[in-house]
Amino acid sequence: MRVLTRTAVHSAKKVKTPAKIDYAKLSLALHKKLRGKIALAPKAHLKNRTDWSTMYTPGVAAVSSHLAKNPKDVREYTLKRNTVAVVSDGSAVLGLGNIGAYGAIPVMEGKCVIFKEMADIDAFPIVLDTQDPEEVIRVVKAIAPVFGGINLEDFAAPHCFVIEDRLKKELSIPVMHDDQHGTAIVVLAGLINAAKVVKKDIKALKVVIVGAGAAGSAIALLLVKFGIKDVVLVDRSGIIDLDRAGLTGYKKELARVTNPRHVTGELENAVKDADVIVGVSGPGKIARAHVEAMAKDPIVFALANPIPEIMPLDALHAGAAVVATGRSDFPNQVNNSLAFPGIFRGALDRNVREITDDMKLAAAKKIASLVKKPTADNVIPKIETPGLVKAVASVIR
Amino acid sequence: MRVLTRTAVHSAKKVKTPAKIDYAKLSLALHKKLRGKIALAPKAHLKNRTDWSTMYTPGVAAVSSHLAKNPKDVREYTLKRNTVAVVSDGSAVLGLGNIGAYGAIPVMEGKCVIFKEMADIDAFPIVLDTQDPEEVIRVVKAIAPVFGGINLEDFAAPHCFVIEDRLKKELSIPVMHDDQHGTAIVVLAGLINAAKVVKKDIKALKVVIVGAGAAGSAIALLLVKFGIKDVVLVDRSGIIDLDRAGLTGYKKELARVTNPRHVTGELENAVKDADVIVGVSGPGKIARAHVEAMAKDPIVFALANPIPEIMPLDALHAGAAVVATGRSDFPNQVNNSLAFPGIFRGALDRNVREITDDMKLAAAKKIASLVKKPTADNVIPKIETPGLVKAVASVIR
Repeated sequence: MRVLTRTAVHSAKKVKTPAKIDYAKLSLALHKKLRGKIALAPKAHLKNRTDWSTMYTPGVAAVSSHLAKNPKDVREYTLKRNTVAVVSDGSAVLGLGNIGAYGAIPVMEGKCVIFKEMADIDAFPIVLDTQDPEEVIRVVKAIAPVFGGINLEDFAAPHCFVIEDRLKKELSIPVMHDDQHGTAIVVLAGLINAAKVVKKDIKALKVVIVGAGAAGSAIALLLVKFGIKDVVLVDRSGIIDLDRAGLTGYKKELARVTNPRHVTGELENAVKDADVIVGVSGPGKIARAHVEAMAKDPIVFALANPIPEIMPLDALHAGAAVVATGRSDFPNQVNNSLAFPGIFRGALDRNVREITDDMKLAAAKKIASLVKKPTADNVIPKIETPGLVKAVASVIR
Repeated sequence: MRVLTRTAVHSAKKVKTPAKIDYAKLSLALHKKLRGKIALAPKAHLKNRTDWSTMYTPGVAAVSSHLAKNPKDVREYTLKRNTVAVVSDGSAVLGLGNIGAYGAIPVMEGKCVIFKEMADIDAFPIVLDTQDPEEVIRVVKAIAPVFGGINLEDFAAPHCFVIEDRLKKELSIPVMHDDQHGTAIVVLAGLINAAKVVKKDIKALKVVIVGAGAAGSAIALLLVKFGIKDVVLVDRSGIIDLDRAGLTGYKKELARVTNPRHVTGELENAVKDADVIVGVSGPGKIARAHVEAMAKDPIVFALANPIPEIMPLDALHAGAAVVATGRSDFPNQVNNSLAFPGIFRGALDRNVREITDDMKLAAAKKIASLVKKPTADNVIPKIETPGLVKAVASVIR
């Protein structure tokens, strides 16, 4: 085992066992009491006959006629401009797997609450009674008219890629699979600051990503786009490389842009002298030995939720200089809510039709910049950071 | 011209030219100012880390897991139990015709406001970028998981029939095409009281319906179901009768249960000695001569909006004893909002899976009963009637 660095010791002290709050019990009770977390709110009320005749017939006919003739004005006269669909097929809900539509509803409702609370966006949960990608594409396109944006959520790989790609091409409103891009943006933001903490050139970092699903592949692609050349992905079958037998589909695409040194074999081979390891797979997938094999001052992002690939204290004892997780009870939470509310706020406000890679890079840099003095325990801004949503929204243009 | 009856003269005095309020202008201004009429409202807020961990991860995972194992509890733990989709394909929006999805949005939003204001139901507008009935059925089924009911709105005949029939069969939540059944229920309620005003046995009434689209056919079927035997439908090609050449589809079905005297020809033939004429077609389709040809104390429901088939004053001068319209600025408004909020309130509260004909009849009787002493100017209760929604909801069981 390595000797703990000064920052690592500092971190280790802060990594307490989380308080034993039974969130499962609290959450079940809250959901049962509220019967769901969102309601509809009229923006004006029906108090008298004039209200009825203005909000509804006969007056509303003038608005309908106007929009039939001037479809572009739909953003000015209807809910569309401020409304996002949070769409899921329930195929990869949190870490629970393919639990179907009903199980997905509470998560999508939660996301809608976050949209409203953080960015004043009116989001509505759409969970689908189908997991066929062509059917999903067809349905989302059919219901798109009232929405100003589509947030895809908890779709499993590889379907998530074709669904997002096609919807981006075939709809004229922004479509973003948050499990891919929200995660990738916040990981990049964290790495920008973590590289500063360990005083390394971020573009020269050797990065290993454990897990090549929705999040892993999006992280890899965004890091490469940012200019990090040495990114190696590892999935259940080992390191992804063009020469690996049986590589197909999107993993073949990933192999084309990653792993320039053509490392092969298992995770053990990938971590050797790596500067960064990012876990987006599952509990226990990163061992202390993996961290110990890394270069000086390793950066460990163990993002499986609620149980990380390696517990922070273990990572620190194995020599990690910076540790991030997906949990709110440890320092450095990689939380998608840092990104998606501002991204959609900006896209809706400026009628941005597509969230481009350049926008994602700009969002990551902006999020990173909100940490004024990065330290081992503070590479990612807190969700309560004043001006967060506005700052992120400002770069979506 | 007939001599005006006492009640008719009484009515004629009340039928003033409506105040010249420019609702079109007011409505355009309101919609532009509000940018749509509905917003999302969280039922609880994200004020601290416990809120985040309870409303969202990690706590929400317990709710998702619970629902994956106990799908029936979806009504207890999510928005489903109080949420209705107001779905349209924009093919028959108000009296504007097939104006498409964007033009439909303001009407559907208005309906959502009515749902919330009257019945505290959270309704969300879904307007479809397709008018293919098979596609509509497919899409509505796919998005059904979050909804406790489906209100179909402004779908043109004959597609509206197959869409509603199939969705009723293939979904386990209530589905109602309001243009059909909401209208039919309120018309029947009005006729129950109008028959009392003219002191006729309602089941013995001879009823003529001008227009055999969504509303006309539903009215005919509900009146027949109620026990009115002599109902005659008239469409653009004249009286609907089994012997009429070229009769197909749903009109053939209608012919089977209506027109027992086998009247044929044009509207002129149908109105002779009729007790009731119901217009659900368009402006000017009922002439004074038609009313004059009817039996003593004719009942005229001229429901085209905003311009009725015959203006109330003309109908009264032609001898009408009771006149109803679809307008709020004349007495006796046939307003669907008297029916649908209570119907869905009852269905959602009692987990009613289908709105049956018996429920529609019960709703009509209940609405009629809210007018304690029917008079020529008061056969239909006002939308402000205290206890209206609760009363209607009470019979949906």
